[in-house]
Amino acid sequence: AMEKSYMSMFLLLIAISCALAKDAAKKETKETKETTAKPKLPQTLSRGWGDQLIWTQTYEEALFRSKHSNKPLMIIHHLDDCPHSQALKKAFAENKDVQKLAEKFILLNLVYETTDKNLAPDGQYVPRILFIDPSLTVRADITGRYSNRLYAYEPTDISLLHSNMQKALKLLKTEL
Amino acid sequence: AMEKSYMSMFLLLIAISCALAKDAAKKETKETKETTAKPKLPQTLSRGWGDQLIWTQTYEEALFRSKHSNKPLMIIHHLDDCPHSQALKKAFAENKDVQKLAEKFILLNLVYETTDKNLAPDGQYVPRILFIDPSLTVRADITGRYSNRLYAYEPTDISLLHSNMQKALKLLKTEL
Repeated sequence: AMEKSYMSMFLLLIAISCALAKDAAKKETKETKETTAKPKLPQTLSRGWGDQLIWTQTYEEALFRSKHSNKPLMIIHHLDDCPHSQALKKAFAENKDVQKLAEKFILLNLVYETTDKNLAPDGQYVPRILFIDPSLTVRADITGRYSNRLYAYEPTDISLLHSNMQKALKLLKTEL
Repeated sequence: AMEKSYMSMFLLLIAISCALAKDAAKKETKETKETTAKPKLPQTLSRGWGDQLIWTQTYEEALFRSKHSNKPLMIIHHLDDCPHSQALKKAFAENKDVQKLAEKFILLNLVYETTDKNLAPDGQYVPRILFIDPSLTVRADITGRYSNRLYAYEPTDISLLHSNMQKALKLLKTEL
């Protein structure tokens, strides 16, 4: 019961902090204008989730590559101004086992939602990690610890995420 | 059906534009495997079209930003292994006037086609540059020199592209 109430407090916190997503995006648009004048490092496709990994740019590209390489697709939805996303990103980028295993996936991290409802089986929230089989089936069965946000992970869930990645690598259909 | 349309779109893209595209994609997939082991520079959103400019990652993001910033959107379709795309990219990146003017746009460069047919008024080919008004109207009236590929530009067309960018900056609707 203790754990449960702690959990609901945590989820409430997520709801409060990351509901600001839209405002954050607006703010970013504003800042964009101000930063164009001075030279800076080019933006990366990794966005800090693992600079040495290969990241796809778009959902269309990711689906194509998954199907044709027969590798599962891992999609991370996140936001720059969500502290839970940032904390998970840090844990993800620093964990060598996770980074190594991630090489076996087609990878996509998204700040903006796609129009595909299959990527939001229990709603749109961040951070949210979904696996898609090369047969282009969303692996809705691969979930984290939180019953009301099945695809959310905390930094402390990184070993669960690792084992979920292993699960996703066991493909639903294998080529003949 | 979804996956089939992605596939046929990609094949159409290859057929119309650069014959080497399919080999290129295969080669890239192959290289992907080989290069994951050694450290390398992170992939950029600019892909060489102007590292100091702000590039959006996806079409969804670009539409959102265009609408909310009231800046027109410029979408460049290109391919890494298409010599025409590469030549235009070089001219685009090296032209200071074009780079300066590009700051006034929401920018997106895409290697994979979206599912939005509005982005292919006269077919899918590369290089192909389309402008979209913040009212989310495709500016099909802003065209290059070639009657059978209205949105294609050659490196020698860079000043036409510059004047087309100026045209796109005169928005269809102005805010009250």
